[in-house]
Amino acid sequence: MPDTPNIQQLLGLQHIEWVGDATTGHLRLLDQTRLPNEQVFLECRDVQSVWDAIKRLSVRGAPAIGIAAAFGCVVGVRGTTSEADTRAALKRAADHLATSRPTAVNLFWALDRMQQVKPCTPEALLTEAKAIHAEDEAMCLQIGEHTLPLIEQAMSGADSPGASQQPGRAGLLTHCNAGALATGGIGTATAGMYLAHQRALPITVYADETRPLLQGARLTAYELQSAGVDVTLICDDMAAHVMRQGKVQLVITGADRIAANGDAANKIGTYNLAVLAHHHAIPFYVAAPSSTFDMAIPDGSHIPIEERAASEITEGFGQRTAPNNVKTYSPAFDVTPNDLITAIVTERGVISPVDTDHVAQVLGYV
Amino acid sequence: MPDTPNIQQLLGLQHIEWVGDATTGHLRLLDQTRLPNEQVFLECRDVQSVWDAIKRLSVRGAPAIGIAAAFGCVVGVRGTTSEADTRAALKRAADHLATSRPTAVNLFWALDRMQQVKPCTPEALLTEAKAIHAEDEAMCLQIGEHTLPLIEQAMSGADSPGASQQPGRAGLLTHCNAGALATGGIGTATAGMYLAHQRALPITVYADETRPLLQGARLTAYELQSAGVDVTLICDDMAAHVMRQGKVQLVITGADRIAANGDAANKIGTYNLAVLAHHHAIPFYVAAPSSTFDMAIPDGSHIPIEERAASEITEGFGQRTAPNNVKTYSPAFDVTPNDLITAIVTERGVISPVDTDHVAQVLGYV
Repeated sequence: MPDTPNIQQLLGLQHIEWVGDATTGHLRLLDQTRLPNEQVFLECRDVQSVWDAIKRLSVRGAPAIGIAAAFGCVVGVRGTTSEADTRAALKRAADHLATSRPTAVNLFWALDRMQQVKPCTPEALLTEAKAIHAEDEAMCLQIGEHTLPLIEQAMSGADSPGASQQPGRAGLLTHCNAGALATGGIGTATAGMYLAHQRALPITVYADETRPLLQGARLTAYELQSAGVDVTLICDDMAAHVMRQGKVQLVITGADRIAANGDAANKIGTYNLAVLAHHHAIPFYVAAPSSTFDMAIPDGSHIPIEERAASEITEGFGQRTAPNNVKTYSPAFDVTPNDLITAIVTERGVISPVDTDHVAQVLGYV
Repeated sequence: MPDTPNIQQLLGLQHIEWVGDATTGHLRLLDQTRLPNEQVFLECRDVQSVWDAIKRLSVRGAPAIGIAAAFGCVVGVRGTTSEADTRAALKRAADHLATSRPTAVNLFWALDRMQQVKPCTPEALLTEAKAIHAEDEAMCLQIGEHTLPLIEQAMSGADSPGASQQPGRAGLLTHCNAGALATGGIGTATAGMYLAHQRALPITVYADETRPLLQGARLTAYELQSAGVDVTLICDDMAAHVMRQGKVQLVITGADRIAANGDAANKIGTYNLAVLAHHHAIPFYVAAPSSTFDMAIPDGSHIPIEERAASEITEGFGQRTAPNNVKTYSPAFDVTPNDLITAIVTERGVISPVDTDHVAQVLGYV
């Protein structure tokens, strides 16, 4: 068994890292808004700079936001000496960080967990933040290990007639970035890709560029290419054609929030791929940690869809590409119904078929 | 019956126009590469400037290219006095223009037609070029009239449960630009929209932005907005979500080349929409003149797919949005199989169901 890959090996850098000790150290974040053109690090020495980094998407992806917020709490208690002072500073930090991205579930989860640390000291808080980071890294690895057999299965399908030109090479299609950059480890949707690459399995990843914010082009293509994974960038409207040509044996994406029945909200365009995969009889997988499930909502109709600013569509490339004052519609997410999802891969196992019973069973709620 | 709309009324400008007489006049073209930010006209006084305009997509769309090339022939014979001189200049012009976009069927058709003009004089050639322009305008109108009942049918469907929020308002989705700017008239896919708008039928058009070159954002949104048609711009990966919300009752696109069985090649992303429309039980129409049919090819498998440069994906808008040296795949077109096309609307009538027999019947080949 080869060593398990970590993000440092994959990318040659750590995108979230605590530098130094609990009382004088600080949080270093890769500024993802500067990718892929520049590798710029933010050195966060106060809570506001962590808040800013989350707000302006310098750090993004649900697990990564949670980790950054946990370290942000440690930043907030620097210089405190009594437990009362530390606790007060922690509360101020957590209250402020909670306003940075109000819809991010992992953010609140991480801030809650930090506030339960006892004793409330900088050292104990740093230990807890590092534990959150390490647990996320382990979670990614488990998702990768559960994904690997699905990729191997897809590779055998790659020999069938009409499949991709190179026999035995499996084509994997993904959308947005549910990668290492979105987590503390090797990603969720990408985890199986990295493990397959490490085992020298012949895979080609097609990355949707993912309009409007181009996370696929800027982040997924960047991290896979950095890690040496064979990746080909396409525009979102090319996916159907690529599938019809037999170049894709498996589609895998992340998820932002999953209902109790397995309906999955994710970056806009994910549902598009699920319909296309269904039409082409290609398995469609969602990879997400169990923390993504919101068991309080029975199905996807209860998930509100945030709308984004028109400017992301009309001037997203640094120059205006649409008429002035044109109306736009820019939902940030869509919901893929469970009947279009072949399986959901979690760190606790693979949910398939995707329905309320199997979700509860794999997640251990029954 | 209201007056039939023309492009001058719709856009407040003529995008292809001969200015002056046959011997001293010239061709004026709207530079579509500068849209939507600037309205810049190219004054073409020699064949090379027409060639350049076609090559660099200042004029694009199969019918518009044919019209521009016909006028380009007239530009080429300026100053000739004997019929032999005119014929020689015409041949030089046509041979050169034929190399501007080697895969454009209408280009060759127009150049052939110009070379059959008798007597071969600048005046007769200008008359013929103007006839090609006028015939295209009439063709667009006929397509619009055949499309209108399909829109009215969709409007009645808009009252059904789950349909768009405003009862009776029909949502039409289109891709790329098969509009006035692509033709000498009111477009092909857009023709029915303009007629519906003129008749005050309540329609909303959703325009896919159409990556990589954004013809939907730059051209379709521009011309529909200029004409006062209610248009909403979306990213290509949002179409499935918009359909699922019941906002779309009809999808209509153009076509670049249609096989004898009705398989239709069009801008990449069209097949994507056809699959999505099928999944959501929404009619999918192709609007195209009969000249788009290539009866020599039995089906779409014989249509070669041009691949475009990586830079259109990775740095299409003045700044790099993907890692250096990342692999891309950029097919310019895709092929929609006839079984996903509800009907093909031509100037000769509506082909439905779409198969070899019905294509031949409506086009008058049986």
